[in-house]
Amino acid sequence: MATARPVQLRGRLLGREGRPLVCTPLVAATADGVLSELAAVRAKGPDLVEWRADLFGDLGDRAAVVEVARRIRSAAPELPLLFTIRSSREGGHPVAISEEEVVALLAAVCDAGHVDAVDYELSNGAERVREVRARSRARGVALVLSFHDFARTPPADLLVVRFREAERLGADVAKVAVMPAAPEDVLTLLGATLSARRELTIPIISMSMGALGSPSRVVGWAFGSSVTFAVGQGASAPGQIPIEELRAALDVLCATAGERG
Amino acid sequence: MATARPVQLRGRLLGREGRPLVCTPLVAATADGVLSELAAVRAKGPDLVEWRADLFGDLGDRAAVVEVARRIRSAAPELPLLFTIRSSREGGHPVAISEEEVVALLAAVCDAGHVDAVDYELSNGAERVREVRARSRARGVALVLSFHDFARTPPADLLVVRFREAERLGADVAKVAVMPAAPEDVLTLLGATLSARRELTIPIISMSMGALGSPSRVVGWAFGSSVTFAVGQGASAPGQIPIEELRAALDVLCATAGERG
Repeated sequence: MATARPVQLRGRLLGREGRPLVCTPLVAATADGVLSELAAVRAKGPDLVEWRADLFGDLGDRAAVVEVARRIRSAAPELPLLFTIRSSREGGHPVAISEEEVVALLAAVCDAGHVDAVDYELSNGAERVREVRARSRARGVALVLSFHDFARTPPADLLVVRFREAERLGADVAKVAVMPAAPEDVLTLLGATLSARRELTIPIISMSMGALGSPSRVVGWAFGSSVTFAVGQGASAPGQIPIEELRAALDVLCATAGERG
Repeated sequence: MATARPVQLRGRLLGREGRPLVCTPLVAATADGVLSELAAVRAKGPDLVEWRADLFGDLGDRAAVVEVARRIRSAAPELPLLFTIRSSREGGHPVAISEEEVVALLAAVCDAGHVDAVDYELSNGAERVREVRARSRARGVALVLSFHDFARTPPADLLVVRFREAERLGADVAKVAVMPAAPEDVLTLLGATLSARRELTIPIISMSMGALGSPSRVVGWAFGSSVTFAVGQGASAPGQIPIEELRAALDVLCATAGERG
């Protein structure tokens, strides 16, 4: 399940065959809180951290946001950093800034050079996505284009459309996270992941959320998902597993898939 | 994913909701070998052991076989014991006795009263299955009717037909184990398991074998499989995971599904 165009993030390869990268979110509301969370999380050895800036109290203060990014980078220079402002429509914390200001903030964060990747939602529309794409590309920052549905799992063909749309709009990584209502929905997400993996040339990330979906966080890599999100100190989405436990489960499965008959 | 008719085996419920029973095979070729394997395996706390008697060197000696079953029961009176003569057609060790002798041996083993369940393959045909069913039922021994394909994963509808056939022929438990050639096949097996789980009233056991299929051994319970096979000392099928590691992975996932959002 390797991808044609893996993304290099500080020496970690997103989109390689086999074991996925483990990403831990930073969800604190203050600068000091984020930094202390980072210290705790870093000790647990994630491959990647995602700063969920929608949960940051001072999102309206562009300089403050850039400064936190700088402090994260400075405290953990080896760790790839993904910067995300998740919208409340897609499961994020409500933010006090407009979408134009979000785009401007993403641009400022790319310009400052402290992050390796930014996440932007497909639902913002092609025009805004192109703007973020242009700015991130100019600064060598990878772009994750994402789609979340916290209410349901759309049919597999519609999920594949989302992955495809992300690639078409220039994403370096396509991400889809959806909520299952029944175990069938978990298989739908895994099947769509596999179809997209076979079709797309960029790495993809997918998960089925919540308790029902938690198996996807452990086995999604076998169906083409290159990153799995795990709890460091605080969860950023329902169904996330603590990083130590997730890593233990991956140790078992990836060793089995790679080495045993 | 609870079943309408769970099977009680020495206090363990096969077919309950959630966490599956972990079954460890005994694969030694001699009586002393089986007993020493049992001691090692028992220390690892399986929920169930399967004596794979096709691997036993003296299968032609009915009294010797019954005596090993007696010694297993006596050494581990708390452990449910499944007695299986896997045919070489379905991945077992070639045996020197005819199918009529296999049926007679299963009858003798049921009569002796040292085992809790016996496995018999659907491919032996309805008539022989009825004979084994009658004898096991008369002795209060549970019957697992099984189907294995070590060469491929048949389409989902054909897998469901196998599960259904097992129920129709009076199985207490229906088992399907198939080999994937691609990740899609693992989803096919899981999807068929889910369909059968929703349709049948008896517990079902399923797995996708080999390295590609190993995720099914960890997450199959979420799609309706009530037992997962793990290596104690020696594997009985490709892709089996060591029991300690499998249990650790189940600890993570079953806790997540049961307790976390």
